[in-house]
Amino acid sequence: MSTYKKMLVAIDLTEEAPQVLNKATAMCSAQGAELLLVHIVEPVGYAYGGDIPMDLSELQDQLDKAAKEQLGKYGEEYGIPQVNQIVSVGRPESEIHRLANDHEVDLIIVGSHGRKGFQLLLGSTANGVLHGTECDVLAIRIR
Amino acid sequence: MSTYKKMLVAIDLTEEAPQVLNKATAMCSAQGAELLLVHIVEPVGYAYGGDIPMDLSELQDQLDKAAKEQLGKYGEEYGIPQVNQIVSVGRPESEIHRLANDHEVDLIIVGSHGRKGFQLLLGSTANGVLHGTECDVLAIRIR
Repeated sequence: MSTYKKMLVAIDLTEEAPQVLNKATAMCSAQGAELLLVHIVEPVGYAYGGDIPMDLSELQDQLDKAAKEQLGKYGEEYGIPQVNQIVSVGRPESEIHRLANDHEVDLIIVGSHGRKGFQLLLGSTANGVLHGTECDVLAIRIR
Repeated sequence: MSTYKKMLVAIDLTEEAPQVLNKATAMCSAQGAELLLVHIVEPVGYAYGGDIPMDLSELQDQLDKAAKEQLGKYGEEYGIPQVNQIVSVGRPESEIHRLANDHEVDLIIVGSHGRKGFQLLLGSTANGVLHGTECDVLAIRIR
């Protein structure tokens, strides 16, 4: 019996990513599941709280492009086809939920550190991935 | 590559247990892992906050016995040998950590509902399973 058919692994682009990807790809092979590789870019406007109006779209484009390149490298290294590599802009929790629903994912995998790890799972309020998701969640402990 | 060698599934003894056990045993088969079946009984004293001194040890014994019987039934149903069935008395979070360490578990599996589910994962403070554990945690969404 295959427990999971489609997994979504959400990574940040730090040194923790390979640890998460090693386990995620091994889990996928063991279960014969499909794997979506996801990175969420937060809108630049969220980080920039200044009063002076600025056009941040070019900066945002650069960030998206860099994220896509980096995710593409991981995808190549771990044998995840380009069509399953997704860079999305938004609030990480809600974007992960949206993607998991849209793609009918049955397991979300995240690392235990950083902005996109346990913190994201728990959420600053009751809005973390763990609360809002319809599917199972695997938290990989980063060492 | 086998990602996990030893899994610990912590269940309460409600109707959510079979949902958790179905996935846990399927995961174990897929990974060729060993499975520990765990239920934590909370000390009766924790629940009884009265001022009048009472001997609760007999009640506690009865609870332990009932829990062991119920866990034994699940163990039989899901093919988990008796030596891998553990009923332990204590605070669920700390007992799960202790057992996971003692038995060198690399994946803890819990359900998403109830006192021993996500609530336990998160903890009332920063002491939930998710914070204190050294291993990965899989949260099964109960439907």
